[in-house]
Amino acid sequence: MTMPFNSSTFTITDGRRFKLADHPTELREHIDKDDLKKLLAEDREKIIDLQEKLYAEGRRSLLLIFQAMDAAGKDSAIDHVLSGVNPQGCAVTSFKQPGREELAHDFLWRHAKATPARGMIGVHNRSHYEEVVVVKVHPEYLIGQRLPDIASPKDADEAFWERRYAAIRAWEEHLVHSGTTIMKFFLHMGKAEQKKRFLERIDEPRKNWKFSIGDVQERAHFDGYMKAYEEAIRATAALHAPWFVVPADEQWESRAIVGRLVRERLEQMSLEWPVLTAEEKADLAKAERLLKAE
Amino acid sequence: MTMPFNSSTFTITDGRRFKLADHPTELREHIDKDDLKKLLAEDREKIIDLQEKLYAEGRRSLLLIFQAMDAAGKDSAIDHVLSGVNPQGCAVTSFKQPGREELAHDFLWRHAKATPARGMIGVHNRSHYEEVVVVKVHPEYLIGQRLPDIASPKDADEAFWERRYAAIRAWEEHLVHSGTTIMKFFLHMGKAEQKKRFLERIDEPRKNWKFSIGDVQERAHFDGYMKAYEEAIRATAALHAPWFVVPADEQWESRAIVGRLVRERLEQMSLEWPVLTAEEKADLAKAERLLKAE
Repeated sequence: MTMPFNSSTFTITDGRRFKLADHPTELREHIDKDDLKKLLAEDREKIIDLQEKLYAEGRRSLLLIFQAMDAAGKDSAIDHVLSGVNPQGCAVTSFKQPGREELAHDFLWRHAKATPARGMIGVHNRSHYEEVVVVKVHPEYLIGQRLPDIASPKDADEAFWERRYAAIRAWEEHLVHSGTTIMKFFLHMGKAEQKKRFLERIDEPRKNWKFSIGDVQERAHFDGYMKAYEEAIRATAALHAPWFVVPADEQWESRAIVGRLVRERLEQMSLEWPVLTAEEKADLAKAERLLKAE
Repeated sequence: MTMPFNSSTFTITDGRRFKLADHPTELREHIDKDDLKKLLAEDREKIIDLQEKLYAEGRRSLLLIFQAMDAAGKDSAIDHVLSGVNPQGCAVTSFKQPGREELAHDFLWRHAKATPARGMIGVHNRSHYEEVVVVKVHPEYLIGQRLPDIASPKDADEAFWERRYAAIRAWEEHLVHSGTTIMKFFLHMGKAEQKKRFLERIDEPRKNWKFSIGDVQERAHFDGYMKAYEEAIRATAALHAPWFVVPADEQWESRAIVGRLVRERLEQMSLEWPVLTAEEKADLAKAERLLKAE
């Protein structure tokens, strides 16, 4: 199949000129759903193979971060791209509203605890970016964090957010130097599409249990969220920790694009099966002799 | 397809009369490999559906424990039975040789930290049973645990092991009362089959990196391990925390049997999609009005 999209158009490795408005919420050229499914199925097979090598190599890890508005399809993208991967090699962490113990620590603490071990794919469904997105939209949440320099939401000035971005950049750079490849996905869905999906969820008994009235009320801040995402991406996109702004109004498009991007990144890692040293080979030969002599 | 085996023959809910010798390492009646694959594929589809309901319900969890000798197929059984399940709803923990921090705590500590949250399937690849199997075969490992009553390996007498079994029984009962369904799998492979698999691993570049000469040396204790497993199963099989002794000389047999047992257990849990309360329904209706009025 010829590639129906160019994955580099979604990739932001330098945020300085980034504008969310330059990125559409659906592909400009319509692609048949069956073609997208087929593409994703092929890429998933490839990801399954490459994950085996990543695990065997045991020297590097892959961290996939998913951020988006409610109903943009984070859960289903994770499911479609990664189910099939050996569950031993893949750990998903879904970050909810922080609890008391989490609030009692610095804002990276709970995320740092969940990074993937060498050999693993780690998925963060929501992440430390909530701390510069939802918290930026609702600076009153900062009060619960009991920070030394924040007595009132008004104390969260430009310099405060710049320090948070700087902390994120430094931490991600440290992870990369420690052997972690980082991919940050923003599933970019329009406000009208969210309304449509919310109405579908309400009518669907298999889905309406995950719906709350708060989700609708939060829509009042939709533009504020888009601004916060744009600022976060501008401040934290880097060659070693790129953002991928994925059109998400069509679910099969976003799933196929995420699958393709993950596959490409794993391929770029040049994973190889471990090669035995001379000493290890000698040990194997000895083991073989011992077994045959039993 | 008519069922090619009766899953109850593998199930031990009362260990008092349990003898490992009564349990074969392969099915008595040969089953075609393609039939086993087909059966497993069907059961896996069912498991994928049931896991979705388990997650939606969010009130109970399933803990699958895998124990076996090296090369018996724990990893591949986990992969074949659970890949396909939404990775967000399934967390695998592989327990290696304990590190210093782990040794500085009671023997259940690291296992308790890894139990599945409500809604989740948790898989323990090796488990707290290593503490009454490998440690029973090698009581010298107890020295590193700095226990108050163990100054020398000889201090680990019958009463010591009985206290460990009792601690395990009590902890598992507590988990069950807290909403966790426990299944404990022993993949039962013969000593000759292990030799065959070790020799295959040595010859296979995709597998020989996970082989060490220690694995061969440990075969000298094979009978000791079988005795320790028998004793552990006798002491800890219970209606609420059953053992499943699965013939493992034929890999597709053991995979299909594990898949069938997991499916049956999930079916017995009578999982249902969450039903909304009157209040939740009113909230949904309100959300719908708000959205339509935008």
